[in-house]
Amino acid sequence: MAELPGSVGTCASFCLRLGQTIFSSASLLFMSMGVGFYNYTAFCYMVTIMGLVIPWSFTLAMVDGYSVMVKRLTRQPGILIIIVVGDWVLSILTLAAACSTASVVDVLLYSNGLYCPKVCSRYQVSAAMAFLSWFCSSATSLFNLWLIPSL
Amino acid sequence: MAELPGSVGTCASFCLRLGQTIFSSASLLFMSMGVGFYNYTAFCYMVTIMGLVIPWSFTLAMVDGYSVMVKRLTRQPGILIIIVVGDWVLSILTLAAACSTASVVDVLLYSNGLYCPKVCSRYQVSAAMAFLSWFCSSATSLFNLWLIPSL
Repeated sequence: MAELPGSVGTCASFCLRLGQTIFSSASLLFMSMGVGFYNYTAFCYMVTIMGLVIPWSFTLAMVDGYSVMVKRLTRQPGILIIIVVGDWVLSILTLAAACSTASVVDVLLYSNGLYCPKVCSRYQVSAAMAFLSWFCSSATSLFNLWLIPSL
Repeated sequence: MAELPGSVGTCASFCLRLGQTIFSSASLLFMSMGVGFYNYTAFCYMVTIMGLVIPWSFTLAMVDGYSVMVKRLTRQPGILIIIVVGDWVLSILTLAAACSTASVVDVLLYSNGLYCPKVCSRYQVSAAMAFLSWFCSSATSLFNLWLIPSL
């Protein structure tokens, strides 16, 4: 089986998963630092999705880290398909959450620009972190999808 | 070469492309029927993306229709990769536009519910059409991506 960089069990995959975990956690942190987020559906949605992405990516980061340490790739087609589908769904949801948050922040900035700069910059950082998390997630998903036909 | 339903040049692909064209046109129409859309970045973004998706999907629908009529599949790896990448990028942009529009409509409905029902339902339909267009676009992209390793 080809050792494709970025697929499950490689060092690149471990780095991508770690990045995903860190960016998702940062996004959740910046979003929920205040309590104002539950006024907007998009922000609640973002918090929900990040609450799904963090355990998923953290678990897979642990699996990758273990594979890198013991230098053994444990790839079964069934598990790989579950990982690809899970990554796919979560990356779509993350992108949706990031776009929704970014556009709501944009509306808030224009409609009430006076009080918003205090909190809107936090929401903006949160959306940016979610975009970075989406980038890592879709990259791992593509690398693993590429691997499926060779199994 | 396997005749995968949904890949370039098949009848299923023609139907998906046609659906994509119709949904994108409907989305653009519902969004730009009034002139109020340019007050919000998300709505302008949606109009821009739909202006890109419509010619792309219409052209590929024509190509698929021609292939179905003459019963000949003209698949070159280079062209297929361009189609997959183009579909991919456009489907991500469509999803982003649909989510942004939906979340902005949600904010508008809650913040000024009195005057919004007149126009907000139009924007809601536009977002729904964009979601359907995204669904068709990502389906064709996945089918064609699946075909690439067999070339």
